[in-house]
Amino acid sequence: MDSFQQISPKAKIGANVRIGFGVRIYDNVVIGANCTIADHCVIGTPTKHPEFSGQPVVIGEGSIIRSHTVVYEGSSYGAELETGHHVVLREGTRAGDNLRVGNFSDIEGNCQIGDFCRFHGYVHIGKGSVVGDFVWIFSLVTLTNDPLPPSHLALPVTIEDGAVLAVGATPLPGSYIGQGAFIGAGSQVRGKIPAGAVVIDGKVVFGVHRLCSLEHGIQHPWMTHFKDAYPEVAWERIEQLRVKVSEASLKVK
Amino acid sequence: MDSFQQISPKAKIGANVRIGFGVRIYDNVVIGANCTIADHCVIGTPTKHPEFSGQPVVIGEGSIIRSHTVVYEGSSYGAELETGHHVVLREGTRAGDNLRVGNFSDIEGNCQIGDFCRFHGYVHIGKGSVVGDFVWIFSLVTLTNDPLPPSHLALPVTIEDGAVLAVGATPLPGSYIGQGAFIGAGSQVRGKIPAGAVVIDGKVVFGVHRLCSLEHGIQHPWMTHFKDAYPEVAWERIEQLRVKVSEASLKVK
Amino acid sequence: MDSFQQISPKAKIGANVRIGFGVRIYDNVVIGANCTIADHCVIGTPTKHPEFSGQPVVIGEGSIIRSHTVVYEGSSYGAELETGHHVVLREGTRAGDNLRVGNFSDIEGNCQIGDFCRFHGYVHIGKGSVVGDFVWIFSLVTLTNDPLPPSHLALPVTIEDGAVLAVGATPLPGSYIGQGAFIGAGSQVRGKIPAGAVVIDGKVVFGVHRLCSLEHGIQHPWMTHFKDAYPEVAWERIEQLRVKVSEASLKVK
Repeated sequence: MDSFQQISPKAKIGANVRIGFGVRIYDNVVIGANCTIADHCVIGTPTKHPEFSGQPVVIGEGSIIRSHTVVYEGSSYGAELETGHHVVLREGTRAGDNLRVGNFSDIEGNCQIGDFCRFHGYVHIGKGSVVGDFVWIFSLVTLTNDPLPPSHLALPVTIEDGAVLAVGATPLPGSYIGQGAFIGAGSQVRGKIPAGAVVIDGKVVFGVHRLCSLEHGIQHPWMTHFKDAYPEVAWERIEQLRVKVSEASLKVK
Repeated sequence: MDSFQQISPKAKIGANVRIGFGVRIYDNVVIGANCTIADHCVIGTPTKHPEFSGQPVVIGEGSIIRSHTVVYEGSSYGAELETGHHVVLREGTRAGDNLRVGNFSDIEGNCQIGDFCRFHGYVHIGKGSVVGDFVWIFSLVTLTNDPLPPSHLALPVTIEDGAVLAVGATPLPGSYIGQGAFIGAGSQVRGKIPAGAVVIDGKVVFGVHRLCSLEHGIQHPWMTHFKDAYPEVAWERIEQLRVKVSEASLKVK
Repeated sequence: MDSFQQISPKAKIGANVRIGFGVRIYDNVVIGANCTIADHCVIGTPTKHPEFSGQPVVIGEGSIIRSHTVVYEGSSYGAELETGHHVVLREGTRAGDNLRVGNFSDIEGNCQIGDFCRFHGYVHIGKGSVVGDFVWIFSLVTLTNDPLPPSHLALPVTIEDGAVLAVGATPLPGSYIGQGAFIGAGSQVRGKIPAGAVVIDGKVVFGVHRLCSLEHGIQHPWMTHFKDAYPEVAWERIEQLRVKVSEASLKVK
């Protein structure tokens, strides 16, 4: 039995939701059935942004919000959201189904995120970023948005379906990462990266089909060998994406 | 109404302070009027350092401490401090007015920080760092301090007024960043960087007046086009700083 | 007096353990004598991994777990573990004595870690990593493990005794860092790094004895001048390690 909770009677909490120790749930919260909200989370944190203040945060069915996570009001997440520990999700974001966000990551607000995305730890999704479906963002990736910091300009990053950003990659403001492109560890990204391209040290070097392990008999695009890491409902969409990225990869350079 | 708090009767808490759910406030705490201490914060954490143990932490009027933040005893912050979520502020630091520290940032102790500084997320201010007024430090910047790690040596970093460190910049131990200098994304910094200089990939390349957007009609130093992001009380100081940085910028190289 | 705790009666808690405000302790927890578990920690978080679910987490005598830290069941830590704030320690890890893990760090599970290791902030120890004794890992270091991300492959990193990874170093999947090697700030690491070698920008450049400060009269390996930062019980082992690393250093290149 959990306790020491402060749950607003105005919050709408679905059937079979488990709420941990020390959880606070504010007014404008809608939690779907079968969710888990773990210890010390704060859900529905009020925002001062007039556009989102007083608007609900909707968390889809079957979600797992791990401990010490903060989710603002005025945002929505599809079914089966999973967060790590100590995550921050700000107001104004709309995310699809089955988003996973790792420990210490931060989605900064006003973002659009598709279905089945996977973000690892210390990932910072800058304000206004647009992220497609099946996107992989590894640790310490920051999506920037100010081209002349500090300024009032905002040029958020766009990442298309199935793209992969390896650890420490930094898409610079306004960059566009095409479908299924792969950004190598620690690389900065500027401008427009074609679909299916691999970027190493800031340069497009070849298509993703060149990323392979002969020893293990696997080859990118990752949809070829990693589809089974997803729920079966996603497989057809992954297969369609694989075909498109494979074709694009052959045209790179 | 908030609850489940543990607030020392020895703490001095000003008028109109709002204290959230699950907050703990230790003995040596002085909080000015009109502050907000959000859920699950811990204020006045005891330190073992004899110099600061038992000394007060003073948080100025009108401050906002966001959830899950930890502030040690033996430190002081001017008016209108704002922290993000999951921030750590250690003992022995003295900061001026209106410091803003983003999510997951960490000020490691014994630092001096001026007025109106802005730190984004995952910023690590190493022990003993000296930071002037109006300094901008973007995400994932670490101010180092040990020139031969690990060792007992300590060569903290100094950053002068109005300097900007873009995402992932790393000032190496003992580096000195002059007034209004701009350190590009991911760049390391060694030695002395002149006032008004731009550093890209570790090298001074030109003055900050060369950073501009023709399309948007703006040009660095940032004080030219971003003064209005500050409260009006700061504008005269920003204008004085602009004049100095502009002059310095023209002398670079 | 601390309060608002939720402590399982099944947890085994040693003599003289101090437990802070808002702490939750789950069933499968064994805490040695004289430990401190600070405010808002969660100890014994259940895991879904069948191998570790229901298995105890053992925390050795004299440990200090700082606030907002999460420790999973199914893991063990020797005496005098110290964590910073907001740390995450996952299931399946076995660590030796006197491990110190800085703020916002994350040990991802199934890792082996020796005695007397020191990890600073934002350190991510990828799943399955093997880390020896007396290893130093500075801020923002990520130990990766997937050579073709995303995939089902796992090539964790191995780090031998006394090695040092400076701020932002990134050992790539499968890399091996020999005894007492030193990886410079921001460097990627591939393949096998010899004992006693210094890596700058991804390349072995010389032996660690070349890292020195004439001004301060100190020279690597660090065991020469930094032994006294450890408890005396460790000194003989440090001295033995110094001899081995010094010899290896002379053979580099």
